[in-house]
Amino acid sequence: MSLQSLFYPRGVAVIGSSSQGKLGYQLIRQLVGGGYRPVYAVNPAGKGVPAAQGLSGVPGYSSVTCIPQPVDLAVVVSPTDTVPAVLEDCGQAGIKAAVIITAGFSEVGNQAGEAEVAEVARRHGIRVVGPNCAGIVNTRHKLTPTLETLPPAGSVSLIAQSGAVAGVVLAWAKEFGLGISKFVSYGNGADLREVELLRYLADDPDTDVVALYIESVSDGRAFMEAAQHCTRRKPLVVIKAGRTESGQRATLSHTGSMAGADAVYDAALQQCGAIRVGTVEQMFDACKAFSTLSPLAGDRVVIVTNSGGPGVMAADWAEEIGLNVAEPSPAAKDRLAEFLPPHCAFKNPVDLTVEGTEDGYRRTILALVEEYDAALALNIAPAYLDSVPLAHGVCDAAEQSGKPVAAAFLPAQIVKEAVPYLESRGIPSFATGERAVSALGHMARHQARQKSWRPLASPEPEQQIPGLLPGSGQMLEHEAMDWLKANGLPVPEYRFAPTLEKALQECGEIGYPVVMKVVSPHILHKSDLGGVVLDIQDNAAAETAFSRLQQAAAGRDFRGAIIYPMIRGAQEVLLGLSRDPQFGPVVACGLGGVYTEVWHDIVLRVAPVDKQEARSMIGELKSLPLLQGARGELPCDLDALAGLLAEFSQLPFRYPDIGEVDLNPVFVFSKGLVVGDVRIINRSK
Amino acid sequence: MSLQSLFYPRGVAVIGSSSQGKLGYQLIRQLVGGGYRPVYAVNPAGKGVPAAQGLSGVPGYSSVTCIPQPVDLAVVVSPTDTVPAVLEDCGQAGIKAAVIITAGFSEVGNQAGEAEVAEVARRHGIRVVGPNCAGIVNTRHKLTPTLETLPPAGSVSLIAQSGAVAGVVLAWAKEFGLGISKFVSYGNGADLREVELLRYLADDPDTDVVALYIESVSDGRAFMEAAQHCTRRKPLVVIKAGRTESGQRATLSHTGSMAGADAVYDAALQQCGAIRVGTVEQMFDACKAFSTLSPLAGDRVVIVTNSGGPGVMAADWAEEIGLNVAEPSPAAKDRLAEFLPPHCAFKNPVDLTVEGTEDGYRRTILALVEEYDAALALNIAPAYLDSVPLAHGVCDAAEQSGKPVAAAFLPAQIVKEAVPYLESRGIPSFATGERAVSALGHMARHQARQKSWRPLASPEPEQQIPGLLPGSGQMLEHEAMDWLKANGLPVPEYRFAPTLEKALQECGEIGYPVVMKVVSPHILHKSDLGGVVLDIQDNAAAETAFSRLQQAAAGRDFRGAIIYPMIRGAQEVLLGLSRDPQFGPVVACGLGGVYTEVWHDIVLRVAPVDKQEARSMIGELKSLPLLQGARGELPCDLDALAGLLAEFSQLPFRYPDIGEVDLNPVFVFSKGLVVGDVRIINRSK
Repeated sequence: MSLQSLFYPRGVAVIGSSSQGKLGYQLIRQLVGGGYRPVYAVNPAGKGVPAAQGLSGVPGYSSVTCIPQPVDLAVVVSPTDTVPAVLEDCGQAGIKAAVIITAGFSEVGNQAGEAEVAEVARRHGIRVVGPNCAGIVNTRHKLTPTLETLPPAGSVSLIAQSGAVAGVVLAWAKEFGLGISKFVSYGNGADLREVELLRYLADDPDTDVVALYIESVSDGRAFMEAAQHCTRRKPLVVIKAGRTESGQRATLSHTGSMAGADAVYDAALQQCGAIRVGTVEQMFDACKAFSTLSPLAGDRVVIVTNSGGPGVMAADWAEEIGLNVAEPSPAAKDRLAEFLPPHCAFKNPVDLTVEGTEDGYRRTILALVEEYDAALALNIAPAYLDSVPLAHGVCDAAEQSGKPVAAAFLPAQIVKEAVPYLESRGIPSFATGERAVSALGHMARHQARQKSWRPLASPEPEQQIPGLLPGSGQMLEHEAMDWLKANGLPVPEYRFAPTLEKALQECGEIGYPVVMKVVSPHILHKSDLGGVVLDIQDNAAAETAFSRLQQAAAGRDFRGAIIYPMIRGAQEVLLGLSRDPQFGPVVACGLGGVYTEVWHDIVLRVAPVDKQEARSMIGELKSLPLLQGARGELPCDLDALAGLLAEFSQLPFRYPDIGEVDLNPVFVFSKGLVVGDVRIINRSK
Repeated sequence: MSLQSLFYPRGVAVIGSSSQGKLGYQLIRQLVGGGYRPVYAVNPAGKGVPAAQGLSGVPGYSSVTCIPQPVDLAVVVSPTDTVPAVLEDCGQAGIKAAVIITAGFSEVGNQAGEAEVAEVARRHGIRVVGPNCAGIVNTRHKLTPTLETLPPAGSVSLIAQSGAVAGVVLAWAKEFGLGISKFVSYGNGADLREVELLRYLADDPDTDVVALYIESVSDGRAFMEAAQHCTRRKPLVVIKAGRTESGQRATLSHTGSMAGADAVYDAALQQCGAIRVGTVEQMFDACKAFSTLSPLAGDRVVIVTNSGGPGVMAADWAEEIGLNVAEPSPAAKDRLAEFLPPHCAFKNPVDLTVEGTEDGYRRTILALVEEYDAALALNIAPAYLDSVPLAHGVCDAAEQSGKPVAAAFLPAQIVKEAVPYLESRGIPSFATGERAVSALGHMARHQARQKSWRPLASPEPEQQIPGLLPGSGQMLEHEAMDWLKANGLPVPEYRFAPTLEKALQECGEIGYPVVMKVVSPHILHKSDLGGVVLDIQDNAAAETAFSRLQQAAAGRDFRGAIIYPMIRGAQEVLLGLSRDPQFGPVVACGLGGVYTEVWHDIVLRVAPVDKQEARSMIGELKSLPLLQGARGELPCDLDALAGLLAEFSQLPFRYPDIGEVDLNPVFVFSKGLVVGDVRIINRSK
């Protein structure tokens, strides 16, 4: 169902008291002031709003059903308990969309009221934004049913769970001139939420950039698909609040919704190509860059400045966030030397010094964007110089080259004329060099992801009968190995021996040296209890080992031993599967042991992943050099590891009752790999 | 020598053309406009500046020697080649201080001109700021010889190497109301530089906070002493630009470039208690907090807000930078419940919701600062509500409690009245919640360092004759071990054996198992060449080992083998010494191997360190859990390690020809430690 009635209504009814000072009155003034017509006031007294302060008046009706002209959108600010009846009326009147600003629903424990609203809306096919929301904006349609600051028109669309955040961005949009296309604060999200709004904006021709503020998502997978649908078409900038423990605690109390582990959000956003930022300032800067600059072909950025120190600080920051700020080529330096005085620094930053001129900026940028993907003109204006001519040079260079050129002209007080001039010619100016650099960094990252874009990996088609994990509780190790083997995962040769006699026989068949581990349903951490004996060389040692395992299990349910060949010369890797409440199965890869415990060097993805995605997971491990053969060792078979990771990530879709699986360690050789140990937790147990 | 003449002159002469539009003219207008008297114009024509635009005129003289009244400060903007003669005149006239704004000296390669300026100044006892600088300000004396924006008066003093950075801060100071006491842009620093200015401002009663922007220091040790002199008295906020673009690298021999010169600046600033920030925005925010808020007794911060989302983001950030944002105690929650409606979140952040009132802010903050060290009032103002009453509540709570309360009232456009109101009552308001949190974080860190303050460790008193390293080139391993032993460092039993016969005898005396390593002046990386044989069990194995070492050294200068007992069950640690061009000897500690190569987990300090500082170095290692006995092992003897580190850090002062020393590994046991290998590079070699 289209959201046409919501964003492009033929008429708007504002339902709630229209007396001066009331929210209904303010909304009507805001709508009329924004240029929207026709607007109708609806309240029990049927009171309209008279013309005042140059704004025309609005007729009043006692019910939406009495309005003779077509109305597509109802904006509701009437008291909480009236809202279901108001929606009934809207249904009668054929209204197809409602923005419910009224609060007092699930956010204060009134789940029943909210459910009733949702039910009435569904029955009448009314699409609802809210309740407890800050309204919507569509600048193309001059539609402004919100109490927030009205932003200038443009191509950035914003979806916000929190009305306050939306309010800040709209106020800043006005203050700093960021053009907004559509804005939706969806509040409690009784009907429309981030997923459907995201899909709409992804396909909206009036939107070039989508910004999203969320505290949680309700359906992680649907969100990822909608987000990827969006990022294929346009940049998606996301704030996900509640990064840390205290943030999440606050989120719980704030929205009453359960926030997933932040690292999973991080992974999910990365997988669907969204740009995650941490603050509203960063969101604002990124949107400004995306909506004004052409895409960056790569990550090479040159900084042209009139000031050494701030130039160095911007270059520092660029390097820190992974941009390439290499020096210009000798040929480019030669070209610069043709017109720049010798006291200028021909490095990166190129320092034109305080004597930098309009022509200096123009020619320097033009000469350098030939070999860089973007330029930043960083100008620290002294109070006694006019910086408008310098802005002129920057704009000329951007236009002539067609390359992305960002500006940071500061301090604001002194560049009061230069910044509007820059922006009037399509050059965004940022508050500091570092913030400009961050915005370019987001653009470069977005472009890199576009280049390597591919659809999210799909779960294997569901079986007619979903697979069941064997056994009724936690599987014993040899049962788990059987199961891995049956699912095509590489396991070493292994034998289960309930008795010493059988153990000696199996040791002989496998061939010494061997490893022997205790098998007991009551022992989870075998090593800690002395339940693992390595490097057993002969029958005598095997006898000793078996009795040690029996001792280790003393007083527990001892079932026997599992025997493996002794494995050497392999790198040990950990693969894990778990379940996130929002995103479902999640797959992890790390080096295990201290690498995971001390360094937290573990890479997550929402499962499943294909082999290519598995490769990039491995590539993100900080300990990658160890897998690539640091310290003179042979490199590990990363191709086999990626294959296993992809295969492993499909298991929870084949076996929906999987809760957690740890393969720890996986022995990775220079050629091939085998799973060394496995632990499976059944979801229902 | 005092800088009284510079900052509190009885008269100022501006030397250079005073024609309208010239720098001299502008400076005189700025001085007179700022309220300073008396000012004299000095130029060949003896031309004064007439009264204009309500500003009084200034008399002109052809030379400073002709001015009949006392003049203490000369401000020089005359052409480059006239400056030495101008200074001669100043000397004749008894002028004791000069601010030389004129450029064209060492920054463009004119070292000779700058040396001449310095020589004339020294001869006449004139203290010089500049040349090539942006001037100075002393708001207490209404002294404003600068072309930059004039800031409001206050208690923050600023020293800046870069005039452009100073210009930005002064302009922002005006824009955002940060009060400045003294400002110095020292440009090329021919005479006065950061060290002497820092010492002056540390003792200046008109300065409560010192901010410093540097790109380099000339004498690292003198800088550290001056900085510590300052931080003992007042906060010192530092920007050191050039974090990544470092020409010189402090390298440790085994592992290549583990730490750039910037890491040494980081260590040095930490050692002397300075607060390092990355951007001018951060410097500005920190200065604002330090100059307006009383010190934080601890790191517990409560966030009181009217808005869930931004509150969550601020709490996220607070936790990320190490502040304690724990929930209020049950008792405090009970108190809140007495006056807050139940839909407010009583966690941290405390969310008063958009219905938050003046009284709500006042009582909530008052109730909570009893158990927190600071509060942040984060108010996201909707356009339709007046936020001044809320600001009123915040200010009352701050005054009544006497606790530090910061504010972030935003967006700026909507809180145009609330922010000046807050600041008029001494409550700083920051642009975003995150920025307020960062500023509180700096305050908490400063206070923690004040609590654990102690003077920098001193080098051991110099010997009459400085020690010389033995040998003429790189020391052989046994010579190096001899030297360590002579200096009291713990070494294992070791024997040098030039022949197989001797080797077998020494192995027997040490007792098997042993380790044997090749000794050759031409082999640096013994392991890479097979020059190390571990775990030799008997005479036969020792014979084989010796001949393997001979093969490893084939074609090189083979001197024999060094033999050690085989050491097991120890944690391996790396200690290093190197030399930084600015700061001299630097000491490093890490876990060696992959911990250093892959994780860059190494902690630096400017040497020497005392045992307490050595302990905090060890405490900063990310791999500390491994030393504390992670994974069920015994904890290492960290006391012995700290002792060794302190002892080791004194060596370069006893032996000034030390270039680099690596102790890698040091074997650390649960009790005691020994140096396992050593490499020494002579400074002059």
